[in-house]
Amino acid sequence: MKNAVILLSGGLDSATTLAVARSEGFACHCLSLDYGQRHRAELLAAQRVAAALGAAEQRTAKLDLTMFGGSALTDTAIDVPTTAGAGIPITYVPARNTIMLSLALAWAEVLGSGDIFIGANAVDYSGYPDCRPDYLAAFEKMANLATKAAVEGQRLTIHAPLVDLSKADIIRRGMALGVDYGLTVSCYQADDDGRACGVCDSCRLRRAGFEQAGVADPTRYAG
Amino acid sequence: MKNAVILLSGGLDSATTLAVARSEGFACHCLSLDYGQRHRAELLAAQRVAAALGAAEQRTAKLDLTMFGGSALTDTAIDVPTTAGAGIPITYVPARNTIMLSLALAWAEVLGSGDIFIGANAVDYSGYPDCRPDYLAAFEKMANLATKAAVEGQRLTIHAPLVDLSKADIIRRGMALGVDYGLTVSCYQADDDGRACGVCDSCRLRRAGFEQAGVADPTRYAG
Repeated sequence: MKNAVILLSGGLDSATTLAVARSEGFACHCLSLDYGQRHRAELLAAQRVAAALGAAEQRTAKLDLTMFGGSALTDTAIDVPTTAGAGIPITYVPARNTIMLSLALAWAEVLGSGDIFIGANAVDYSGYPDCRPDYLAAFEKMANLATKAAVEGQRLTIHAPLVDLSKADIIRRGMALGVDYGLTVSCYQADDDGRACGVCDSCRLRRAGFEQAGVADPTRYAG
Repeated sequence: MKNAVILLSGGLDSATTLAVARSEGFACHCLSLDYGQRHRAELLAAQRVAAALGAAEQRTAKLDLTMFGGSALTDTAIDVPTTAGAGIPITYVPARNTIMLSLALAWAEVLGSGDIFIGANAVDYSGYPDCRPDYLAAFEKMANLATKAAVEGQRLTIHAPLVDLSKADIIRRGMALGVDYGLTVSCYQADDDGRACGVCDSCRLRRAGFEQAGVADPTRYAG
């Protein structure tokens, strides 16, 4: 089995991505990032999801992005918005996907792997720039110049199997692959037990996805 | 004054890069990375260098790359080579510059800065792939698709003012700008007091640079 590194936040999209990678026959090395996020419950969800979906292993890297702030997820002085607004929301974390893909690149090189999976999606999403296909293609191009492995001929591929899917289609895909979405946490301000607020951007996209997919929403909501 | 983020390891190249950025009129926000490196003395050197060269501030991010290993600098079971070999040496740290540039990108975005400086050099260097101009250009291209700032029109430039200079020319440039190289630590296995081994790849390149520049070597060598 070929090794792959899977970026696993513990949310709906990354859980589905792990299931896709497993279905393609990869031995899945899951990487989560404890970056000081408000919704730390997602880190426990990542462990549960990795175990449930037969990952080879799951590791959590620690990097305190609250040292920079600039996002509602890394600065407790900025509230998580609960109504849809225009433009890229304040829940955007500066360079987060670039940082996480860079860590995945390091691990992939050590594993001798040429495959990184990320649950980026550019359809029913918050408009984050680092979820778009042209960004992902540019990262892949850079990565193929960055490493000793690349110099030695190892081709690196960034897989984003959900990038063109609607949230409903992601859910249908995951259900077909046996994902238990009750294990996942998407909410930006989930409580310590992983219960969702139901009103943040991430909750609204997720809830609408279950509705459109015609699937019962297994999310545990607070209150 | 425009803000810039300077990747500052505490070594000769990054100290010179900071001096160049200062001479170009930037307010310099210096970022160091405590990644579990064998030569932790460089982190203290980074603080000294930032203060001596009038940086606006210096911060040290912490990210334990020993969780991946794969390098003599992040795995104590791998010795630092003391003779020149062929190919990219085992002191190469997987994806290190990509990780550090990603962190710089995050900080630059929060600072409203479009300028990142890195002391990468592709002449008298160890052959690390992530020091080459084509890699740096690819990172810059990716970065300009990665952030909210980029979407909003902020152009991001990766400055690598040393990339085409010999080590001797770097030293001459730094001397002209008032860099005290006695404050810097380049050695891959410097002791806790910052004294250099004199025989690792980094020490050999540095020592030869001072010789070729005709400048007295201020390095404190152990033993």
